[in-house]
Amino acid sequence: MSARWLALSGGVGGAKLVLGLADTLPDPRRLTVVANTGDDFEHFGLTICPDLDTLMYTLAGVANPATGWGRADDTGTFMQALARLGGETWFHLGDADLATHVERTRRLGAGESLTAVTRALSARFGIAAEILPMSDAPVRTVIVSNDQVMAFQHYFVRERCEPVVRAIRFEGAAQAKPAPDVLARLADPDLAGVVIAPSNPLISIDPILGVPGLKAAIAKAGRPVVAVSPIVGGEALKGPTAKMLHELGAEASVVGIARHYRGLLDGLVIDPVDAAATGAIEALGPAVHIAPTVMRTLDDKRTLARAVVGFARTLTRRKD
Amino acid sequence: MSARWLALSGGVGGAKLVLGLADTLPDPRRLTVVANTGDDFEHFGLTICPDLDTLMYTLAGVANPATGWGRADDTGTFMQALARLGGETWFHLGDADLATHVERTRRLGAGESLTAVTRALSARFGIAAEILPMSDAPVRTVIVSNDQVMAFQHYFVRERCEPVVRAIRFEGAAQAKPAPDVLARLADPDLAGVVIAPSNPLISIDPILGVPGLKAAIAKAGRPVVAVSPIVGGEALKGPTAKMLHELGAEASVVGIARHYRGLLDGLVIDPVDAAATGAIEALGPAVHIAPTVMRTLDDKRTLARAVVGFARTLTRRKD
Repeated sequence: MSARWLALSGGVGGAKLVLGLADTLPDPRRLTVVANTGDDFEHFGLTICPDLDTLMYTLAGVANPATGWGRADDTGTFMQALARLGGETWFHLGDADLATHVERTRRLGAGESLTAVTRALSARFGIAAEILPMSDAPVRTVIVSNDQVMAFQHYFVRERCEPVVRAIRFEGAAQAKPAPDVLARLADPDLAGVVIAPSNPLISIDPILGVPGLKAAIAKAGRPVVAVSPIVGGEALKGPTAKMLHELGAEASVVGIARHYRGLLDGLVIDPVDAAATGAIEALGPAVHIAPTVMRTLDDKRTLARAVVGFARTLTRRKD
Repeated sequence: MSARWLALSGGVGGAKLVLGLADTLPDPRRLTVVANTGDDFEHFGLTICPDLDTLMYTLAGVANPATGWGRADDTGTFMQALARLGGETWFHLGDADLATHVERTRRLGAGESLTAVTRALSARFGIAAEILPMSDAPVRTVIVSNDQVMAFQHYFVRERCEPVVRAIRFEGAAQAKPAPDVLARLADPDLAGVVIAPSNPLISIDPILGVPGLKAAIAKAGRPVVAVSPIVGGEALKGPTAKMLHELGAEASVVGIARHYRGLLDGLVIDPVDAAATGAIEALGPAVHIAPTVMRTLDDKRTLARAVVGFARTLTRRKD
């Protein structure tokens, strides 16, 4: 049996590397993707899980290539009709996308765990890799700005990330437990390594690492942990990562990323444009591998995935 | 100001006459349609009101002409995607139609009455006539068959009216009150008459008449009450009316209709094919008017509406 790999991922940016991994590992069924669910929210009575959906749609080959989220070839009849009725339209829901939320909500209402629901939906989408929510308990990312506290999607979509971020809270995290299957995969003796996808560390990876017991389980696994920097040349490839790091007093650079994940990483993959930072990163602990991290094509994703896996295989887990 | 008219109606069949009335009365704003809400149900967490929707879509000119329910030119992306995910697809929800249910559910959840929600949606659809739910309280029609008790939509849509009907119950009716605006319209001195549309008396009109106080308010109004027979030549024009009347031991004929509404009607409009029943109906109380009641075209609807209004104007309210 081939080695097992486990990836931690948020939505669009992380899903690109995850697709590369699923497409290049000898057996994609041996890839487990642990998804951030801090972005989840309730809208129109539906439980919407943006990162789980982006990962599912991406791995199923039905993601909208223009946006990275939502479904390709979806229709917008529902939103158009809703707009004419004066409804809430700040969060776009395509007609086919809506079916995912309705079916998920129905299953959750019938008592299924989010893990079970995600497994059932993934099977329907014909996805070989295993997508797991970080926890079956609700964790909700909350953005604290100067004078307001906002649910994450309100900040991210409705306010277009414009408010200044003063703090980020993960409500429910203290009471949450890692999804049982996440712990089982981390305890699998066939596990070869843990990959942290190039997602926003503050709002995509930190909620995962913030589930009590998850960091300890990663440490206990004793396998190399490799991250791909979401910052390239001081800029985020996607989304508000750089802006948020600045606002929270951190450096929006590959060194800032290494510092953010301090104590966790055995390796960090950075883009050639950041090669000069190699020494500063290695001084913080992790080994550095330089590879193009900007993924435009499927080939870019596959090439980076191979580089990450190859790099991880050269590493051994550091002793804490 | 022109006279006010009030119609009691269910869905598809009744909506045809209602459209004729709205299209021929001097001022459609003086037409109030009291809709059956016994067919309403909760599905996917949404409050779906089939008869209110059919009336709205019909009066707004956006109804699907092929089915009579649902919206014209709607897309079916949501249902297709839901089917692929293994979801519940027995109740068809078009993508644009779904927006109506979502917006209604959102408004109800925010504390608005069903009357207020219906008014807001009707305004958005540009409907001149006033559509009112019979009650703001939930009333749910339940079908009792030989060995099972079914929510109405389960009987009607999922089971395609196949189970034998032994009894019909209106759950919640005893606790319900007529919507306040319904009582206000019945008390309006400008009210000229009450029209009972050619809807199924058992499942579309009886739930309305079963709301405590509504029959008394009609009686107190002192205006002629005229029904259009939903039975023509012993057959229902639409749906399971004849089958249900049989199963409940009633006669599926215009005389059976007159008997069903005994004590309530001042006049009954019947089709020429039933002209021979005139004497038997008049012996039960109501005057009879003969007019073509099969409405295929808009012109048929307008012609019948004019005939009904003209007939009602010749009547005075019978003394009980």
